[in-house]
Amino acid sequence: MRIRGHVLRTPVLRSDWADARLAPGTMAFFKAEHLQWTGSFKLRGAVNAIFSLSNEEARRGVCAHSSGNHAAAVACAAASRSIPCTIVVPRGTPQAKQDNAAAYGATIVVCEPTQQARRQTVIEQAARMGGAVLIHPYDDALVISGQGTMALELLEQCSDVDAIIVPTSGGGMISGIALAAAPFGVRVYAAEPLGKRLGEALSTGARVVDPASADAPLETIADAIRTRPLGETAWALRRLIEPTVLSVGDAQLRAAMRTMATQMKQMVEPAGALALAAMMTPAFRAEQELAEAQGRPIRRVAAIICGGNIDLASWGSLVSGGVYRS
Amino acid sequence: MRIRGHVLRTPVLRSDWADARLAPGTMAFFKAEHLQWTGSFKLRGAVNAIFSLSNEEARRGVCAHSSGNHAAAVACAAASRSIPCTIVVPRGTPQAKQDNAAAYGATIVVCEPTQQARRQTVIEQAARMGGAVLIHPYDDALVISGQGTMALELLEQCSDVDAIIVPTSGGGMISGIALAAAPFGVRVYAAEPLGKRLGEALSTGARVVDPASADAPLETIADAIRTRPLGETAWALRRLIEPTVLSVGDAQLRAAMRTMATQMKQMVEPAGALALAAMMTPAFRAEQELAEAQGRPIRRVAAIICGGNIDLASWGSLVSGGVYRS
Repeated sequence: MRIRGHVLRTPVLRSDWADARLAPGTMAFFKAEHLQWTGSFKLRGAVNAIFSLSNEEARRGVCAHSSGNHAAAVACAAASRSIPCTIVVPRGTPQAKQDNAAAYGATIVVCEPTQQARRQTVIEQAARMGGAVLIHPYDDALVISGQGTMALELLEQCSDVDAIIVPTSGGGMISGIALAAAPFGVRVYAAEPLGKRLGEALSTGARVVDPASADAPLETIADAIRTRPLGETAWALRRLIEPTVLSVGDAQLRAAMRTMATQMKQMVEPAGALALAAMMTPAFRAEQELAEAQGRPIRRVAAIICGGNIDLASWGSLVSGGVYRS
Repeated sequence: MRIRGHVLRTPVLRSDWADARLAPGTMAFFKAEHLQWTGSFKLRGAVNAIFSLSNEEARRGVCAHSSGNHAAAVACAAASRSIPCTIVVPRGTPQAKQDNAAAYGATIVVCEPTQQARRQTVIEQAARMGGAVLIHPYDDALVISGQGTMALELLEQCSDVDAIIVPTSGGGMISGIALAAAPFGVRVYAAEPLGKRLGEALSTGARVVDPASADAPLETIADAIRTRPLGETAWALRRLIEPTVLSVGDAQLRAAMRTMATQMKQMVEPAGALALAAMMTPAFRAEQELAEAQGRPIRRVAAIICGGNIDLASWGSLVSGGVYRS
């Protein structure tokens, strides 16, 4: 595999707490991508995209805009190939995340915090580098197929998975996973922060549910999932995703972060707790019951812990409030 | 293996943070026993001891005294074999740890917080149960061989380990690991809280360095490691342990807990961070340099994350202070 040697084969975690709270007989598995180098799954797509460049392209370097995990991933992958890298970050990006990308030797350029400024600045920077390649965080087939490697690993590590729950923003991860897992008969569920309205998009067939707000960041504590519509590539692959979307509010996310700490000993960013929170929703329980009734039970459920990048102080303030009803 | 099906095959974690701070070319591996069922490695020994009982012995049940991880381990193992279990806990044991054992169906009996009261109460309770078997936390060959299974797993999961760093209290874990790993040429290092004086015991050949204080709990934040001398069984096996003992003070432990959270996303109790802290000591660096000079380099180092049982509030107050010099 192209990415081998540049990404970590992340472990799969178990939780008796989760097992006990799902439909009887269910086993829950957690693919620990927060333990991936750079602290998120994003490295897989970035490595796949960057190592597929020709030597000629690679020589000119790569460029990306990101306020978070994609920045560190592209910087790390570029460093692995020893090529130039510029990361455009919107003003207001936490210093820790800027430092994370800079630590891999990337040049950091700060721009205004609007989508337009980000796109424009990254194009300018790419030109300045003599034609650097832009690495999109999700709307890119190579990025998507790179993210799919986590499903290939998961299915090797853990046999007979019936369903995978995947945190979904622009859809790069879920479409990569679905492409890899669907041929094995695995159902792929999207987990989303409340307000993203992905279920509505899937049922109406309109990629952008509300054009007026499409570019405005989603209001959620899951700062890694602020994108509302799926990207176009993910949208084209939407038939691989279950129509039932698992929506999670901020209070449930905070409770799941707390549970991940106290029950699973994992410190994660809000998006990293999204799949656990989604697994605990009545909507997912209903899916399990329906599947049972249809004679095709969902007994082995995997969830993706997609990232863990958060500073201690922010984490502490988020987890100090939430509690699960148990 | 007798324990199969009753204990979790825990994952092995990597850390680029640790790799970068060890001698050049070193790779660090962390056996994640804080993710073991019950939250600590203690389950292995308890399962091995309890599943080796005859049906006649098992029928009468088991008994143990513990203020911590051994309690939940014995309770869980007894529940796995569906036999009666009484746990004697000293007054002052955190409610969370009592609840943990009670959740597995054990009867909890509270006694005065002295070694004498604990021993006496557990004997009384065993008699009351009609001759229940006492499960010692470390000074028991079956418990020791159970703990050794984590080394067998580790060596399967991770080839060519040169050294293992093991948090050491009564010595059940380190002697089990050393018995399993020494035949493979793996060096086994003890990590201890400062003040335990294990290095002195090994060099002088006196198991109890200071008889006057032997029974007094060690002053350390690592509440799982308050035992001063090795148990007699571990002492008999001491030649399997490297003479250089890695001692760690409370400030280093707090810093390591913090690093485990921020760099490795793991929330652990103080003892769970001890092996990482020990790995970062100048004493271990000196061992690596000596080994290099002797042409038998220590390149692949494993550490045991032995437990993770701590409540959020205690964890928060311990990590808010420490910082590593980096």
